Amino acid sequence: MKILLVNPNTSRSVTDRLRETALSVAAPGTEVLAVTAARGVPYIATRAEAVIGGGAALDLLAEHWRSADAAVIAAFGDPGLGGARELFPIPVVGMAEAAMLTACMLGRRFAIISFARALGPWYQECVDYHGLGHRLAGIRLLGDAVGDIATVQEDCADALVDLAVESVRRDEADVVVLAGAPLSGLAARVRDRIPVPVVDGIAAALKQAEALAALQPRKATAGTFRRPDPKPSAGLTEPLARWIAHREEVGE
Amino acid sequence: MKILLVNPNTSRSVTDRLRETALSVAAPGTEVLAVTAARGVPYIATRAEAVIGGGAALDLLAEHWRSADAAVIAAFGDPGLGGARELFPIPVVGMAEAAMLTACMLGRRFAIISFARALGPWYQECVDYHGLGHRLAGIRLLGDAVGDIATVQEDCADALVDLAVESVRRDEADVVVLAGAPLSGLAARVRDRIPVPVVDGIAAALKQAEALAALQPRKATAGTFRRPDPKPSAGLTEPLARWIAHREEVGE
Amino acid sequence: MKILLVNPNTSRSVTDRLRETALSVAAPGTEVLAVTAARGVPYIATRAEAVIGGGAALDLLAEHWRSADAAVIAAFGDPGLGGARELFPIPVVGMAEAAMLTACMLGRRFAIISFARALGPWYQECVDYHGLGHRLAGIRLLGDAVGDIATVQEDCADALVDLAVESVRRDEADVVVLAGAPLSGLAARVRDRIPVPVVDGIAAALKQAEALAALQPRKATAGTFRRPDPKPSAGLTEPLARWIAHREEVGE
Amino acid sequence: MKILLVNPNTSRSVTDRLRETALSVAAPGTEVLAVTAARGVPYIATRAEAVIGGGAALDLLAEHWRSADAAVIAAFGDPGLGGARELFPIPVVGMAEAAMLTACMLGRRFAIISFARALGPWYQECVDYHGLGHRLAGIRLLGDAVGDIATVQEDCADALVDLAVESVRRDEADVVVLAGAPLSGLAARVRDRIPVPVVDGIAAALKQAEALAALQPRKATAGTFRRPDPKPSAGLTEPLARWIAHREEVGE
Amino acid sequence: MKILLVNPNTSRSVTDRLRETALSVAAPGTEVLAVTAARGVPYIATRAEAVIGGGAALDLLAEHWRSADAAVIAAFGDPGLGGARELFPIPVVGMAEAAMLTACMLGRRFAIISFARALGPWYQECVDYHGLGHRLAGIRLLGDAVGDIATVQEDCADALVDLAVESVRRDEADVVVLAGAPLSGLAARVRDRIPVPVVDGIAAALKQAEALAALQPRKATAGTFRRPDPKPSAGLTEPLARWIAHREEVGE
Amino acid sequence: MKILLVNPNTSRSVTDRLRETALSVAAPGTEVLAVTAARGVPYIATRAEAVIGGGAALDLLAEHWRSADAAVIAAFGDPGLGGARELFPIPVVGMAEAAMLTACMLGRRFAIISFARALGPWYQECVDYHGLGHRLAGIRLLGDAVGDIATVQEDCADALVDLAVESVRRDEADVVVLAGAPLSGLAARVRDRIPVPVVDGIAAALKQAEALAALQPRKATAGTFRRPDPKPSAGLTEPLARWIAHREEVGE
Repeated sequence: MKILLVNPNTSRSVTDRLRETALSVAAPGTEVLAVTAARGVPYIATRAEAVIGGGAALDLLAEHWRSADAAVIAAFGDPGLGGARELFPIPVVGMAEAAMLTACMLGRRFAIISFARALGPWYQECVDYHGLGHRLAGIRLLGDAVGDIATVQEDCADALVDLAVESVRRDEADVVVLAGAPLSGLAARVRDRIPVPVVDGIAAALKQAEALAALQPRKATAGTFRRPDPKPSAGLTEPLARWIAHREEVGE
Repeated sequence: MKILLVNPNTSRSVTDRLRETALSVAAPGTEVLAVTAARGVPYIATRAEAVIGGGAALDLLAEHWRSADAAVIAAFGDPGLGGARELFPIPVVGMAEAAMLTACMLGRRFAIISFARALGPWYQECVDYHGLGHRLAGIRLLGDAVGDIATVQEDCADALVDLAVESVRRDEADVVVLAGAPLSGLAARVRDRIPVPVVDGIAAALKQAEALAALQPRKATAGTFRRPDPKPSAGLTEPLARWIAHREEVGE
Repeated sequence: MKILLVNPNTSRSVTDRLRETALSVAAPGTEVLAVTAARGVPYIATRAEAVIGGGAALDLLAEHWRSADAAVIAAFGDPGLGGARELFPIPVVGMAEAAMLTACMLGRRFAIISFARALGPWYQECVDYHGLGHRLAGIRLLGDAVGDIATVQEDCADALVDLAVESVRRDEADVVVLAGAPLSGLAARVRDRIPVPVVDGIAAALKQAEALAALQPRKATAGTFRRPDPKPSAGLTEPLARWIAHREEVGE
Repeated sequence: MKILLVNPNTSRSVTDRLRETALSVAAPGTEVLAVTAARGVPYIATRAEAVIGGGAALDLLAEHWRSADAAVIAAFGDPGLGGARELFPIPVVGMAEAAMLTACMLGRRFAIISFARALGPWYQECVDYHGLGHRLAGIRLLGDAVGDIATVQEDCADALVDLAVESVRRDEADVVVLAGAPLSGLAARVRDRIPVPVVDGIAAALKQAEALAALQPRKATAGTFRRPDPKPSAGLTEPLARWIAHREEVGE
Repeated sequence: MKILLVNPNTSRSVTDRLRETALSVAAPGTEVLAVTAARGVPYIATRAEAVIGGGAALDLLAEHWRSADAAVIAAFGDPGLGGARELFPIPVVGMAEAAMLTACMLGRRFAIISFARALGPWYQECVDYHGLGHRLAGIRLLGDAVGDIATVQEDCADALVDLAVESVRRDEADVVVLAGAPLSGLAARVRDRIPVPVVDGIAAALKQAEALAALQPRKATAGTFRRPDPKPSAGLTEPLARWIAHREEVGE
Repeated sequence: MKILLVNPNTSRSVTDRLRETALSVAAPGTEVLAVTAARGVPYIATRAEAVIGGGAALDLLAEHWRSADAAVIAAFGDPGLGGARELFPIPVVGMAEAAMLTACMLGRRFAIISFARALGPWYQECVDYHGLGHRLAGIRLLGDAVGDIATVQEDCADALVDLAVESVRRDEADVVVLAGAPLSGLAARVRDRIPVPVVDGIAAALKQAEALAALQPRKATAGTFRRPDPKPSAGLTEPLARWIAHREEVGE
């Protein structure tokens, strides 16, 4: 089984970290192909950047989906998820979606913990998009600045654990989601310091992608997630333009 | 990895069918232990029967949880799920919960299709319990009578497919969930006749239980899903009474 | 008129207290028959215990409903309520349900006040089950331990009043519900110390049961609360098994 | 015990009918004082008329509340209810509120059945005001014209029964509420022709007013339903102006 | 273009202030006709006063609507709005409605800031009536007493700015609405001291009334906002009674 | 005053039509600057195309916002709206948002009418994003194919009017929104054939943009819509990259 990790950020260091964490929970036989956005920002943290990242995710999927059994959009706000699910024949899961749905199976209400206040509104809109507001105990974020995403999880591990513990005590969270690609892998290291289950976004997403791939759902040919009719386009990457124009077919 | 399937119905034929479908999607190395309720009704179909089945599920879990890495409550309305998740140290997923959350990753709105009208209110309350009403396209049920649960999926396959297709067309369902333990295994056989992804409850539940087991979440020691304090009891099965009284500890 | 109080806890002292408070507000001519669970725990405080208590409530109703014009499930989380309402021909109200609906007629938002933190998640799920979350100002609970339920209302009266007053001031509660069978009767004694109406669960439930009995609603013969079709069963109490099997009829 | 029925319509024939139905379910010893609006329209059927009726209800309550232990605003949309509950020291229930909350204790979802399409939006806004939209199976209304309110229940009994039966079958209503003052008393006559419990608005309201009076809740002195501070006014009826100005006190 | 400002309070000083603020943002050519309630209270602050004010608003509209292209009900809780919209042929907007919908176009969540705690429940019910609870960051109110409405905005400007700033920081409000007719005009003076967009109720309402007048929507002749059928009435002001009775037609 | 119309579709014919309709309702002195996407598809009709269109909208705004007092994103699903509102200093409204909020001021529930079934899910997600699901009477769409967008409003006028009338009768819509840029201008031509107010998306959006520009709200410097911190980027259009990098300041 092959899982495609689509990183809509332009930072390869983030991609590497995502890939490593994904592999640490992958079933025997699962391969992970991780790709990085060619355009956009190093690390998506706002609504506008998510719009740009959504487009980059579609570009990457158009280029690589044929190599995989299922794909993960590996940024916590799930940029481009609905469009990706509609457009491509393989199952696509969002990292936030997978983390939150997994959390729902471990308790009644989950907290989202991350490192920068800028991420708050984007995460909240993602929770709302998935209709999970009533399962959310709260979003708690560390500080004003995003900091160095390459080292943030090492730099801030203690402070993030404190935030998680506070969320359990004050917000009555049953489960903690550590959110944001730069925190991937942290959950495993701090799980014993937080008194409730901790969900790692990319680990959850990898397992959900494996599960969907194993269940082999068919691509919709009716309803709102069937492949859209062919269309001309301008200014898109070649793979995306070809796919939107139906200039190549599924089995090609 | 060992997954415990708890059938809160008293019908062994249903247990066998659940086990068979679960094995058909299990990862290499996954073992499935399926157990059947000693008390209750052959097939739960109403609110009152679900109350009884919830108790039976706790009995079975108290007796068998030590043998497993994760458990599934294998009846579509998830009887006893909250209590089970609170009481026992291993992850427990409900069959309805797993099916619905899996469906959420395959589309925007899912339909629940099953064979008997009596099941409707119980299913609806289960959807509401999980807070997924806004993702539900509708519940469509075949007829007034439950019929013979051992053969219902063979007897009614065509009618159920028609119902699913109607739900896609009329209710704009993006995904179809075939609900109810007696229908387990049907999805794989009819997938090509329904124009959207079809989710089999027990197959989804098995994969979700595998995913949770692989993620190895810790048991909460704080919050609302920590193990309750020890209590005396009367009239319960010996394993459940012992566990509630803390007469045996986790590692025992 | 005869009202059946079903105590799903195994503590007779709680039953006696419930009966006493119920009688204090009963109309002339109302008789109160109070019965105690034969199996379960002394005092239900968690989701798992509520599953067990729901079964016990059905047992008691199956044995005693013929003696009454209406029944009350006298534990605040309303264990087994939906099943009971479906199964038996007389009106059945839950203690939490009655308290909350009564509170809705006295103000816009009510607070639930009780003595032990363990009760929180069960109460919250009960509020959600009844769809009254938007009328809830908050749940405030005294301490970590349940304490001695026989004396908790005497031991904690002052602290509970403080909690209620705080809820009025901080949560803007218009009405206070004193929740939990062990607190029954307390409301009457502290009403002048709390600046908004205070609702006693069992007092409200008795009045609602009287009201329903007086209105003489018919038992549904259609829809989701009609009596389920006959079914065999295993391992249930004899009265419940007989009733589920239709081995006795309504007028028998 | 004395219950005040406030009819915000100007039709005495409606008042008489309400009083008669209320008395038919009243407990021994309950007296019913029924009063009729001096200004407004013969029968409220629209949002604008409800605004006018709300003012008339306050006028009547200001004049008569001292004579009663509890009051009912006896029009189905509950005109003026929030203001009345805030202003006066005795419990006040709305006829729609009482009917809907009573229905909630008899099933999961209720239908509202009445005679004129004009009533629909007002009723819907009343359901929304009470936050009970998720318990509503549907509103079904007979025809375009209001007709003669003095005889509508006799003229339309069969058609209303048909509508109720249809609502049970199509909308899956567990309970039927016959709404609108002109239909009071009809429920008792047609109960055997509708296969689920039928709630009569004024009968339910009378029982709820009795229940609240028996529970003797205190008037709030804090929170949003405490009596407003004294204010001057212009152009109001003398009793209402006096009460708003605090020119008479509670015990006066 | 002529916009009618209906002040349902009896204070002319409030009317003058509303008119002045409205004119300050009016387009060239817009005339403003401002009228004051003949009955009611100087300043509506509670649910009961809003019931009375709703009636007064209908009286004023019946008398003056022919002189205008659109009307504003210029009290923050929108008393009588639904009735007015249904009854009269010109567009009618509520001041709270216009402020909140304008705020929705400037951010995700808005705060409502005003001067007296008494206003809280009325404002909250207005938010709920418009179904905008999920867009509300919070309601923050200054003190217990209403104070002198003629000078409150001068007296309390600093405290109100502090409250607004606190709401941005603590409640994460994206937009601040300064609510209540006595605060009209304040927003323009303090906009630089609050770090998010500030909406003035009457300014927003004037612009929305202009917009609706420019779009020239037709009066509904079907559906729930068509003009109600003619009706007799008693005790109403002559213009309202005439209009309700259809004793004058639209073009008259 | 200058209003910028951003057409995220690549069709100039659609831009021309939008501009023409906008001018027809513009106040004296309002200038309209209409720009067309350089990349994307001729007409956005699916989730994936909306992701692409959102990026194109940001490109256009980065290039042109300095020329305008307010901007409109002129596609019914509001692609890129949140990002645009966050990123740029002038008010930005979405065409769907403006149409729906305007409709809210003309009735209780609005219908969305358009020409192609493919648009349904995108429109529904837009309604949900704005949290207006409870005000939506329904979405009714004409046929399976999008057809020729240049002539669709002429080709389908009668069928769209029928759909609107049906929506008033069946869905109880109080207001009809004619949605989709290719239908702009149609509302004015068919208003007399639909018995409730009809809202034209671009007309409503132009008036709302004018209203916001007149109110002169400040750009947030705190909260979730403040301008994001500077960031490097790759592969973006030069104006967008410059603005995201803060290589030019607001007043530049």
